[in-house]
Amino acid sequence: MGISDLFDPSGIAVIGASATPGKLGNDAMANAKEFDGPVYPVNPKGEGEVYGYEFVDSVADTDADLALCCVPAPATPGVIEDCGQAGVGAAVVFAGGFAEADEDGKQRQEEIRQTAEEYDIAVLGPNTAGHIIPHKKVFCSFVPGFDEIETGEVAIVAQSGGIGVTSTFQLEREGYGISGMYGLGNRVNTDFDDVIPVLDDDSQTNAIGLHIEGTAEIDQFEAVVEEADTPIVALKSGNRMHDFVHSHTAAPNQDYERYEEILTNNGGVMADTVTELLDASRVLGKSPVPDGPNVGIVTAQAGPGIMMADYLEERGAEFPELTDETHERLDDLLLGFTYDENPVDTGRPMPEFGQVIDAVARDDNVDIVLVYEIFEHSLGYPVEELEQLAEDLDKPIVFTVAGPYDALEPDRKRMEALGIPTFDAPERGAYAASVLVDSIR
Amino acid sequence: MGISDLFDPSGIAVIGASATPGKLGNDAMANAKEFDGPVYPVNPKGEGEVYGYEFVDSVADTDADLALCCVPAPATPGVIEDCGQAGVGAAVVFAGGFAEADEDGKQRQEEIRQTAEEYDIAVLGPNTAGHIIPHKKVFCSFVPGFDEIETGEVAIVAQSGGIGVTSTFQLEREGYGISGMYGLGNRVNTDFDDVIPVLDDDSQTNAIGLHIEGTAEIDQFEAVVEEADTPIVALKSGNRMHDFVHSHTAAPNQDYERYEEILTNNGGVMADTVTELLDASRVLGKSPVPDGPNVGIVTAQAGPGIMMADYLEERGAEFPELTDETHERLDDLLLGFTYDENPVDTGRPMPEFGQVIDAVARDDNVDIVLVYEIFEHSLGYPVEELEQLAEDLDKPIVFTVAGPYDALEPDRKRMEALGIPTFDAPERGAYAASVLVDSIR
Repeated sequence: MGISDLFDPSGIAVIGASATPGKLGNDAMANAKEFDGPVYPVNPKGEGEVYGYEFVDSVADTDADLALCCVPAPATPGVIEDCGQAGVGAAVVFAGGFAEADEDGKQRQEEIRQTAEEYDIAVLGPNTAGHIIPHKKVFCSFVPGFDEIETGEVAIVAQSGGIGVTSTFQLEREGYGISGMYGLGNRVNTDFDDVIPVLDDDSQTNAIGLHIEGTAEIDQFEAVVEEADTPIVALKSGNRMHDFVHSHTAAPNQDYERYEEILTNNGGVMADTVTELLDASRVLGKSPVPDGPNVGIVTAQAGPGIMMADYLEERGAEFPELTDETHERLDDLLLGFTYDENPVDTGRPMPEFGQVIDAVARDDNVDIVLVYEIFEHSLGYPVEELEQLAEDLDKPIVFTVAGPYDALEPDRKRMEALGIPTFDAPERGAYAASVLVDSIR
Repeated sequence: MGISDLFDPSGIAVIGASATPGKLGNDAMANAKEFDGPVYPVNPKGEGEVYGYEFVDSVADTDADLALCCVPAPATPGVIEDCGQAGVGAAVVFAGGFAEADEDGKQRQEEIRQTAEEYDIAVLGPNTAGHIIPHKKVFCSFVPGFDEIETGEVAIVAQSGGIGVTSTFQLEREGYGISGMYGLGNRVNTDFDDVIPVLDDDSQTNAIGLHIEGTAEIDQFEAVVEEADTPIVALKSGNRMHDFVHSHTAAPNQDYERYEEILTNNGGVMADTVTELLDASRVLGKSPVPDGPNVGIVTAQAGPGIMMADYLEERGAEFPELTDETHERLDDLLLGFTYDENPVDTGRPMPEFGQVIDAVARDDNVDIVLVYEIFEHSLGYPVEELEQLAEDLDKPIVFTVAGPYDALEPDRKRMEALGIPTFDAPERGAYAASVLVDSIR
């Protein structure tokens, strides 16, 4: 019973399921159908099948422990009561029209809360886009296309379903997938402090990205962030548009600074945009904790190298001198033609580029390695050298890619598999390195 | 003769062409082969053909007016002399080892400059990745994959070839293409002030994005920026790494503020990252000039709408009250369920979403319309309504997309064709709207 049924259901009921395309209850079925266990479309008016599953009249006729409620707000309290009587342990409520709307809505949300307490039901929402866990084939959302999202290593917990959804599609588009997306909505009884500990224990989740508008349970939030071993990144929004924010997820007005303090006191970082939320989560999820803030930059093109160095210097990163031994190795490799201080610039991709990275990565003065290289077909990326480095060292290496994207994709994937996070614009690679610096401050 | 041969060659000689894959002279041929006119691989040691073109011994044996010099630095002054004698009007010099390197290099660059002056040759570089103009099938670069870059509406003029290359591949990956990329390198006699006026007259180029490290010809730069009608965006880098910057493109140390003043006094904007450079160029290139700084936001998902409003408020955008007439239309469409101040939130995509945009776009208090909508297959994007708006109004509309990217791509392309620029993350749409606000300040 309770929250574990959200994460590990054995059967899923879709209440208000529909055979009519475009309806919420049909969109929810289109995603839920991917589940490996039994799926029950519940609708007394339903006839025949939807996505190969036969309609049933009532949730009481199912063995579901997770219910997706695809009914309007006024019908929801009754549905939750039905779920309780049928022994369902968790429910996702998509409808809006609760505490975020008006007095009637507040009353309705309180009814749900009481019923859920009585039967020990974990309710995700109301007013949520739901949740998905691709590696468990759990797709509990009405968002079209979610059934094709692949597995990744970052989990997103979003107060706004919209931010959860856009984050999910961005991770998918960029080839990273997601370990889970959880839209919290109005948080009737499932809040950040309920979800974070479960994700902290989830072996598929290497980092947790949060989108926060505000929660009344901020002390509990602080406690679970303190407790978590998994890196956490937070994007706090709604710092200005207070009445809009309240109308959205019934969030209380809260200071950015309070969240910043909680995160940064516990090795987490704050992100300012969706892209930063995803990039910071990915780099912290993939990388070992650096020993210090000293960044060594290796670039195959000077211009982007200069830009990354500018970016990092503005954010207070340190660029250490390289040791004499490193300089000797670099002199042999580069023959003095290009800039071999830090940043080290090879001028163009070259067969020795992997050895140049190796020299800088093995330098004891360097804690974090940031690489930039435009892909050339005839050379590829130096995956073999990186494999050796990943084996020998416990030091973060961030690789910034550019070039013909289809051609570089296989090497990019191989680097990711080695534990080397990849980013596709100079500022994104530099941002990722700055996150590693910030995470140890 | 001169710079027009860079932009409109009638024949291209590749000096130092090679049949050996991976060699610079082979990579350059792989791109140059796309040209519609004659292409001449020049190499006295060459035998037979390369990419179907027969080797010739000397540039004197060709009718080329544009030469790509794929020879090392020490051989370059002689090659430029050959070009002059052969009547070649423009040359691209890829090699490094000139003013950015050492005293010998400075001397070499001065030799080239004098020869070029004597024969009236426009030299792009040295120390450049070259230039490409996809709509003219001019691909004068050694960068593998450039021959597949498609035509777009933004031109990039980059002091760093690396930034030019990464910008080109990013525009290509995101489906926008490029109207031209020009890597300036050491600017022996082809500088920003030579290229910008030509692009200002180019009907394929709607906006010009600049990457600047520093130029001695800053007064001439100011004059052409003042003169240009085409929107200009600049990314100034190398604000900190002065010695690395000098070693890169022999750039003088210059203040960010001087460039900022030139740009902002002339309707241009400064960008901080590559992605901003491309996004700002795209939005200014596509959009009519707004009448004022008042932004109306229409969102189908509250969370991203809140984030965009936050982002814009921080940058000083105004959110006007909507007129009574607009509120009446919105009340009919939204039935009071969601937030209908500005931002206007529809809660979910809905068939009436296009009418909601229409209501806000026709509001006289709104100068710039910013839209956010996660794509749903059954609804698509409201392209018909946008088509009508584009016909009736001369007001910028910025559309932020999210969702399953393959599915939404056709509608995104249709919006672009209507003159509605599209962006794929909440912060990118909001940034684009903020650029429109900044451009009239």
